[in-house]
Amino acid sequence: MAASAEEILARPDIEAVLICSSTDTHADLVVKAPEAGKHIFCEKPIDHSLEKIDRALAAVKKAGVKLQIGFNRRFDANFARVKAAVASGEIGVPHLMHIISRDPGPPPISYVKVSGGMFLDMTIHDFDMARFLMGCEVEEVYTAAAVMVDPAIGEAGDVDTAVVTLRFANGAIGTIDNSRKAVYGYDQRVEVLGSKGAIATGNCYPNQAVVSTATEVRRDLPLNFFMDRYTESFANELRAFVEAVVKDTATPVTGMDGRIPVVMGMAARRSHDEKRAVKLSEIG
Amino acid sequence: MAASAEEILARPDIEAVLICSSTDTHADLVVKAPEAGKHIFCEKPIDHSLEKIDRALAAVKKAGVKLQIGFNRRFDANFARVKAAVASGEIGVPHLMHIISRDPGPPPISYVKVSGGMFLDMTIHDFDMARFLMGCEVEEVYTAAAVMVDPAIGEAGDVDTAVVTLRFANGAIGTIDNSRKAVYGYDQRVEVLGSKGAIATGNCYPNQAVVSTATEVRRDLPLNFFMDRYTESFANELRAFVEAVVKDTATPVTGMDGRIPVVMGMAARRSHDEKRAVKLSEIG
Amino acid sequence: MAASAEEILARPDIEAVLICSSTDTHADLVVKAPEAGKHIFCEKPIDHSLEKIDRALAAVKKAGVKLQIGFNRRFDANFARVKAAVASGEIGVPHLMHIISRDPGPPPISYVKVSGGMFLDMTIHDFDMARFLMGCEVEEVYTAAAVMVDPAIGEAGDVDTAVVTLRFANGAIGTIDNSRKAVYGYDQRVEVLGSKGAIATGNCYPNQAVVSTATEVRRDLPLNFFMDRYTESFANELRAFVEAVVKDTATPVTGMDGRIPVVMGMAARRSHDEKRAVKLSEIG
Amino acid sequence: MAASAEEILARPDIEAVLICSSTDTHADLVVKAPEAGKHIFCEKPIDHSLEKIDRALAAVKKAGVKLQIGFNRRFDANFARVKAAVASGEIGVPHLMHIISRDPGPPPISYVKVSGGMFLDMTIHDFDMARFLMGCEVEEVYTAAAVMVDPAIGEAGDVDTAVVTLRFANGAIGTIDNSRKAVYGYDQRVEVLGSKGAIATGNCYPNQAVVSTATEVRRDLPLNFFMDRYTESFANELRAFVEAVVKDTATPVTGMDGRIPVVMGMAARRSHDEKRAVKLSEIG
Repeated sequence: MAASAEEILARPDIEAVLICSSTDTHADLVVKAPEAGKHIFCEKPIDHSLEKIDRALAAVKKAGVKLQIGFNRRFDANFARVKAAVASGEIGVPHLMHIISRDPGPPPISYVKVSGGMFLDMTIHDFDMARFLMGCEVEEVYTAAAVMVDPAIGEAGDVDTAVVTLRFANGAIGTIDNSRKAVYGYDQRVEVLGSKGAIATGNCYPNQAVVSTATEVRRDLPLNFFMDRYTESFANELRAFVEAVVKDTATPVTGMDGRIPVVMGMAARRSHDEKRAVKLSEIG
Repeated sequence: MAASAEEILARPDIEAVLICSSTDTHADLVVKAPEAGKHIFCEKPIDHSLEKIDRALAAVKKAGVKLQIGFNRRFDANFARVKAAVASGEIGVPHLMHIISRDPGPPPISYVKVSGGMFLDMTIHDFDMARFLMGCEVEEVYTAAAVMVDPAIGEAGDVDTAVVTLRFANGAIGTIDNSRKAVYGYDQRVEVLGSKGAIATGNCYPNQAVVSTATEVRRDLPLNFFMDRYTESFANELRAFVEAVVKDTATPVTGMDGRIPVVMGMAARRSHDEKRAVKLSEIG
Repeated sequence: MAASAEEILARPDIEAVLICSSTDTHADLVVKAPEAGKHIFCEKPIDHSLEKIDRALAAVKKAGVKLQIGFNRRFDANFARVKAAVASGEIGVPHLMHIISRDPGPPPISYVKVSGGMFLDMTIHDFDMARFLMGCEVEEVYTAAAVMVDPAIGEAGDVDTAVVTLRFANGAIGTIDNSRKAVYGYDQRVEVLGSKGAIATGNCYPNQAVVSTATEVRRDLPLNFFMDRYTESFANELRAFVEAVVKDTATPVTGMDGRIPVVMGMAARRSHDEKRAVKLSEIG
Repeated sequence: MAASAEEILARPDIEAVLICSSTDTHADLVVKAPEAGKHIFCEKPIDHSLEKIDRALAAVKKAGVKLQIGFNRRFDANFARVKAAVASGEIGVPHLMHIISRDPGPPPISYVKVSGGMFLDMTIHDFDMARFLMGCEVEEVYTAAAVMVDPAIGEAGDVDTAVVTLRFANGAIGTIDNSRKAVYGYDQRVEVLGSKGAIATGNCYPNQAVVSTATEVRRDLPLNFFMDRYTESFANELRAFVEAVVKDTATPVTGMDGRIPVVMGMAARRSHDEKRAVKLSEIG
C-alpha cells in the first residue's frame, strides 16, 4: 500500500505502473510516470481532451517508456477469433461490419454527468473494436441517437440509444448499436461479412443447459456485465503488458490506439449535434 | 369414393393402391391387392403376426407387384442427411448410435389395448430408422422399460417409457429412447458417432425466433406431432412410390423392411418380459 | 391460357387477377383491372414512378376493388413471429431494429440496369418489413452505400452494398444491411430490442444436422434463395388475398403499403447521392 | 517441497492433505492421513478393491476427519445446472437420463493395463454423475461394450466403446455412452427427461464464433480435454473442500460417494463378462 501515486513513482524497484484511477487523473499520471522512467498500463480513455492526450503521449515518447491502453476486449476469445478471421483472409475482403454493444442497465445519473457522454464512455470500446477487427481506420461517422431508456439521461445532456454508421478507409461500411439497457443482460456481439464468407459471435452464458417445458424452450440469461463477461480478457491484457515489458517488445494497444477512439467519439457526438456525417479529419 | 376395397381392386383403371386402413386389415389387403395386380403402398406395420406378414409378402412376390411400406421418416430431410453421412463415410465407421423418439402425449387407453404394444406401435419406426441409418442389421436387443407416464398403460399390459439397446452385426451399439409423453412436444432426434466424426440432428421448430427477456432466453416449442413434423416426408414417400411404379424400379422400403422391425419389436418385448438380452434369431 | 391481359380482364367469370408481369407493366394493369371490376394482387413494386402509382391507386379506389401488394415476407413464419412480439408488447416499447437482407449473388447487369436500382428492387422488401415489424412509419433515412461486390454494378449506376439507417416516428432507430452477395446463401434476419426484451430470428436451413469432425463442427448452408426460403410465404399471401376477396374483408397489404416503400427507396437513393439524411416528406 | 508423504503427515502446521498420487497409493494414504489427524481430499478412485476402500473409510470414520472424493464434474456449471433442475422439480419427476462421455483419444496401452479397465477408470465419473444428477441410487446395470477404437485395447483385456443401461431405485432408466475416441474432442453432455420437462447440456467451446463460407457453416471444435473443459470445476471442488474444513461442515462428496461408483464399475464389467443385467447388490 502506498499513500500516493508519487510514492509509487519514486520507488526505484518498481518498473511499471497500472493507471486505473478515475479518468480525470489519467493524463497527468501518464505525464509523470514516464518522467519517473515507469512503463505504463492506462485504463481507457486517456482523457476527454485531445490536447491533454497529446501532451501525455509526447511525454511517453520522450521518455521512451512503454504504454498500453486498457482496451481489454481485444483480448476476449470471441473478438480475437473474429479479428483472426478477418486478418487471415478466412472471410475474404470485409464489406460490412456490425457491433452490438448493450449494457444491462444505465449508470447512475451522477456518473453520466462526468462520463464525457455515452460516446466517450461506452462507445469508445466499440470504436476501438471496429478499428481492431477491420485492421483499417474509420474516416467518417454518422450518428442516429436518442433518449429511449431514461429521460433523466437526456436532461443530463446525454443519449442512451444510438446507431453509429462507420465508413472505413477501405470502403467497408460498419455500424455500432448501443443501448444503455438490455434487460436480458450484457449484449456483446459482432459480425463481419466479407467477399468469401461471414463470421459472427454470440453472447457468453453461465452454462449451456437448455430447458424444455410445456410452454417454451429456454436457457438462462447471458453473463450480466463486464466483470463476468470479460474476466479472462482483463487477465490476458495484463499478461500481454507484462510480456511486452519483460521481453522489451511493443505493447499490443498503443497510445495512438488510445487517442483515435476519442476522436471517433467526438466525431460521433458532433454528428448527433449537427445532424450530418462528420469526417474524423474535422476533429483533429 | 368407393364403397369398399373390393370395388377399388376390381377397377382396371387403377394401377396401385394405398393401404392406410387400420392395422388388422393390412395383411388381408396385401394378399388381395396383388391378386388383383395392383402395386401396393402399405402403412406400417403390415401386421402383428409374422405368419400373416409372410403370407402377405408371399402373395406380393408371386404376383410380382411392387410393395412399399410406410416408413415415412426415411424421407425426412434430417434423417436422410444422417443416413447420407453414414453411407458416404463422412463420419467413418459407425460405433455408437442413439435415437430419441418421444411423443407429446400417450394415445387413449382404448387404442393402447389394440396397438400391439409400444414396441410394435411406436418403437417400430425407430427400429426401422436404426437399420436404415446404420445400413446394417441388428442382431440382439436388450430392453429396459417402465410405466412412468400413466399407470393405466401398465394396467393395459403395456409400457410407456423404454430404452432399447441394440447390437448391430458390424459391432456397433445403439439405443432407442422412447417416452409416450414429452410435455414440450414431439422429440425426434438421432446421433451417430463414427471413427471420423459424429452427426446429430435436432428437432424442428415453427420458427427460428429467440426472445430474450429479463428472466430467460426462450424460443417457441418444437413442432408438436407427426402431422406437422413429418408433413414433407409423407409427401416424399408417396412421390417415391409413384416414381417406382411409373419407372418400374424397386421401391425404397421393401416388404422385408416391413417385416424386420416387427421381429425387432417382438424381441424387445420378450427382452422386457424375460429380463435378458434377446437375439432376433430367437424370434424367426 | 389467355393470349393477353385484356382477354383475361374481359372474362366475366374472373373475379380477381394476379399481376406478376414485369414491373414496367404493373401500373397500367392496376388501372385497367379495376375498370374491369377485378380485384388485384400485384407484385411489388407497383411502379418506379410515384405519379403512376398514384394514378393506379386512384383507379383502385374509384372502382372500390381490393388490392394486395406482393410483400410476401410478411407471411413468413419468422417475421410474423417478430411482428407478433412487437405488436403484443412481449418485448415492450421498441428502441432498436436491425434487418439483415443479403442475396446469394447479384443479378445480371442487364437486369441491374432496368431494376430501378438496389433500393427499389431489393431494399424495397426491407423497407416494407421495417414498417410492418415496428407498426410505425419511418420519417428519415440515411444511406451509406458502396460498390464492393462487382465494379460493373457501379458502372451501371447502382450500388451493391449498403446500410440504411431509419428514424421512426416513435423515436426508434433501425438499420437495413444489404449485400448483393453473401457466398453462404440467402441471409434474411431481423432483430428488435425493446424496453422489456429483444427478439431475433435466424436463417432457415435444409436440415438440422450438425457434423463434428477432427477439424470443425459444421452444418449445411442455409436455404439458398427466395424460392426455397419463402415458399410457404408465397402460398400464405395468396391464401390471405383469396380470403379477403371471398370474405369481402380488407387485404393485409394495401396500396399505400405498396407506395410508401417506393418513397423510402427514393429517399435512400437521394441520401446516397447527396450524402445527407433525407426526410420522406421531401419525396412526396 | 516435501521428500515424502510421511514428512507432510508429520507436520503439525498442516491441517488437510490432497491425495493426487497414482491410484494404487490412495488407499494406504487414506488410512495414514486420518491417523495423523489430517482432513483428506482424495482423487478418484479411492482404490480398485472394495476391501481396501472399506479399510480406508473405516480409518477416516474412526479419526473423525473429513474426506472429500475428487468427483470434480459435480462442480461444473453445466452439470450443476442440470442437478438443480432435477432437485428443484423444475422438470418434474425424472423418467429418462442420458450421459454422453467421450474422450478425444485413448490413453497409452501401458496405462490401459493398470487403469482398472474403462469402467473403473473413465465411466466411474459418469456413474457418480448419474447418482448425483438423479439424487437416487442405481440398482441394476446392463452393459453393451465393444472394442471399436483400437484392437490393442481389446488385447489388453479392456473395451473402448460402451453403453451402460442403468435402472434407478425410483424406476427411472438411464444410459451412459462412452467412447475412448471422439475425433472432434471431449464430448461431455447429459440430458434428463422428466414429467414436467427436459433439460440438456451441450459442450463447451473456446469461442462462440460461427463462420459461414461458400461450402458450410462452421465453428471451432469444442474444448479438447478435461484440463480445458473442467478447469473451473477443479478450482470449485477445492474451494468447497477448504470451506468444509474451515467451517467444519460436511464435505459435498463423501467416502461413500467414492465407494458406490466403484461398485457400479464392477457391476458394469460383470454384466459385460456374463452378458446379463447385474444388480449392484450382487457386488457388495
